[in-house]
Amino acid sequence: MIKIQPGQTRIGWIGTGVMGGPMASHLARAGYALAVYNRTRAKAEALLDGGAVWAESPQQLAERSDVIFTMVGFPQDVREVILGPEGVVRGLAPGAVLVDMTTSEPALAEEIGRACEAKGGFALDAPVSGGDVGARNAALSIMVGGAAEVVEALMPLFRCLGQKIGYHGVSGAGQHAKMCNQILIASTMIGVVESLLYACRAGLDPARVIESIGSGAAGSWSINNLGPRIIRGDFSPGFYVDHFIKDMGIALAEAQRMGIVLPGLALAYQLYLSVRALGHGRSGTHALMLALKNMCNMRVGS
Amino acid sequence: MIKIQPGQTRIGWIGTGVMGGPMASHLARAGYALAVYNRTRAKAEALLDGGAVWAESPQQLAERSDVIFTMVGFPQDVREVILGPEGVVRGLAPGAVLVDMTTSEPALAEEIGRACEAKGGFALDAPVSGGDVGARNAALSIMVGGAAEVVEALMPLFRCLGQKIGYHGVSGAGQHAKMCNQILIASTMIGVVESLLYACRAGLDPARVIESIGSGAAGSWSINNLGPRIIRGDFSPGFYVDHFIKDMGIALAEAQRMGIVLPGLALAYQLYLSVRALGHGRSGTHALMLALKNMCNMRVGS
Repeated sequence: MIKIQPGQTRIGWIGTGVMGGPMASHLARAGYALAVYNRTRAKAEALLDGGAVWAESPQQLAERSDVIFTMVGFPQDVREVILGPEGVVRGLAPGAVLVDMTTSEPALAEEIGRACEAKGGFALDAPVSGGDVGARNAALSIMVGGAAEVVEALMPLFRCLGQKIGYHGVSGAGQHAKMCNQILIASTMIGVVESLLYACRAGLDPARVIESIGSGAAGSWSINNLGPRIIRGDFSPGFYVDHFIKDMGIALAEAQRMGIVLPGLALAYQLYLSVRALGHGRSGTHALMLALKNMCNMRVGS
Repeated sequence: MIKIQPGQTRIGWIGTGVMGGPMASHLARAGYALAVYNRTRAKAEALLDGGAVWAESPQQLAERSDVIFTMVGFPQDVREVILGPEGVVRGLAPGAVLVDMTTSEPALAEEIGRACEAKGGFALDAPVSGGDVGARNAALSIMVGGAAEVVEALMPLFRCLGQKIGYHGVSGAGQHAKMCNQILIASTMIGVVESLLYACRAGLDPARVIESIGSGAAGSWSINNLGPRIIRGDFSPGFYVDHFIKDMGIALAEAQRMGIVLPGLALAYQLYLSVRALGHGRSGTHALMLALKNMCNMRVGS
C-alpha cells in the first residue's frame, strides 16, 4: 500500500478552479511535489508560480504521480479527464491512487474504481462540502468512498484539505453521502425562502424574525448564514445554482434507480430550474427566493 | 400602564398542560399570586398544591387578575376561553392585559386585541418555540405582537418564561413570526427525512452521514437533534404531528390571504396528513419519515 510522505510522494492535481486551486496549494505548502493540469492553463498560473509542474494532459500527469486528485465541474468532465483517450487511467501506475473530489455520479465512481483496479491502481471518491471558503481555510468536510486501507493511507493528504474526513464505504459511497448533503440543503433552502417571504409579506422585520427563530428548533446554517444575504438582496455565490441543479439531478436519478420517492427534492429541482430560467444560474443557491417572488408576481431583482 | 411586581401583580393562567403547566409554575416561583383555570382540573393540581387559586371560569379568573395568560390547544379553544360567553374578555378589568401564548391565527389575535381594547384593557399575542423542554427550563423563544409599551411593561413576566423575547409589531405579529418558524421547520424536516431515507437506501450508515453533513452548510437543529431519533425509530414527541398540521393550516390560509405561494409548505402539509392517516397524529414531527417510507412501500414501524 502507498506510503504518503512530504518531499517523496508525487501529487498530481487536475482542476485548479475556485475549489481545486486553493486545495492544491495546501498540499504544495505541506511539502508535496505537485504537477497540475487544467483545461484553462491560466487558472493554474498561481500554482505554477509556486513551483508546480505543468502536465500537458491528464495522462501525462498520471504518469508522473503517485496520487492524482481531480476536482472538475460536471460528471462528463470527470469522465473525460479520467476515462477519456488522454485520461488519468491511461497513465496510472500500479499502486497509484486516483481521488475524485468532484461531486459526481455514484455509478461513475464505481466505474472509475473498476478501471483503476484493472491498471493495478486504486480509486477513491471524495466529494466535499464547505465551499470556496472551506477550500481556502482547509476546513472542508470530505466524504470518502473506496477501499478502507487506501483511505487510511491517504489520511495525511486529506488532513491537509479538510477538518472532517468521513469514511462511508465502497466506491460511490462518498458520492452518495454528498447527495445526502445536497438533498438536505435543497428542502432546507425552500423552508428558508418561504419563511422569509412570509415574514416580509406579513409586514414583519425579517431580521428580527431570524433573531427569534434562528437558534431554536427551526434553526439551520442556511437561515443564519444565507437568510441575512437574502434580506439584503445579495445573491452572489456561495454555491452556484447551476452546480446545485447538477447535483440534485444526480440525486433524483439515483433515487429513481433505488426506488425511493423524494417529493421535496423533486420540488426543489423544479424551483431551481425556474431560478435558472430567470437568469440566475450563476447566482448563489439562496437566489431560490427569486423564483418564489416571481411566482407571487413580486418584483424580482436582477 | 400596568406595573409588574412580584407579590402585587395578580396573574391568571389558563391552560395548564405540558407547556402551560411548567410556564405558570415559573411565575408562581418568582413570587406572583396565581389563579388558574383549565378544562381538565386534574391537570392543574400541581399548581393548586403549590398555592395557586382555582377559578371556575375564564371570566372569573379574569375578574381577579391583572395579567391573564392563555396557553391552550387550537384556535377554537382560544376563541372559547377568551371571546366565549364565560370568556376572559367578559371579566377583563380596565388596564388589565391578556397574553395569548397559544400558536393561533393572526386574524384572531387582531380580533382579540380589539375586544380587549373595547373593555379598556390590552392584548398581546406571544406564541413560543422551544417545546416542553424549553417550557420546563424557561428557555423558550417568545414572539410577541401588540402595543410596544405593553410588551415593555410585561418584560419581567416574559423573562420568567423564556430566554429570547422578540417584539414583532402590532397584534397578530407574534403569531406571524411563529408561522415563519413553522414554515421553516416544515421544509427543513422534509430535507431531513429525505436525506436519511436516501442514506439508508444507498447502504450508508446514516449516523456517519449526519456526522459528515450535520455541522456544515446542510446542518440544522432538526438533522442533529431529530436525525438520531429517526435512525433509532424513536418517534415519540417532541412536538405533536396533530399540532403541527394545525399550525401549517393556519400558515397556508394566511399565505393564501396575503397572495403568496408556498409550495414547500403545501407539500409538507400533504405529507403530514399522510403521517396522520398512518395513525401517527400523536407522534413527533420527525415521524414524517414514516410517510416517506410508506410512499416507497418500505415497512413502516408502529
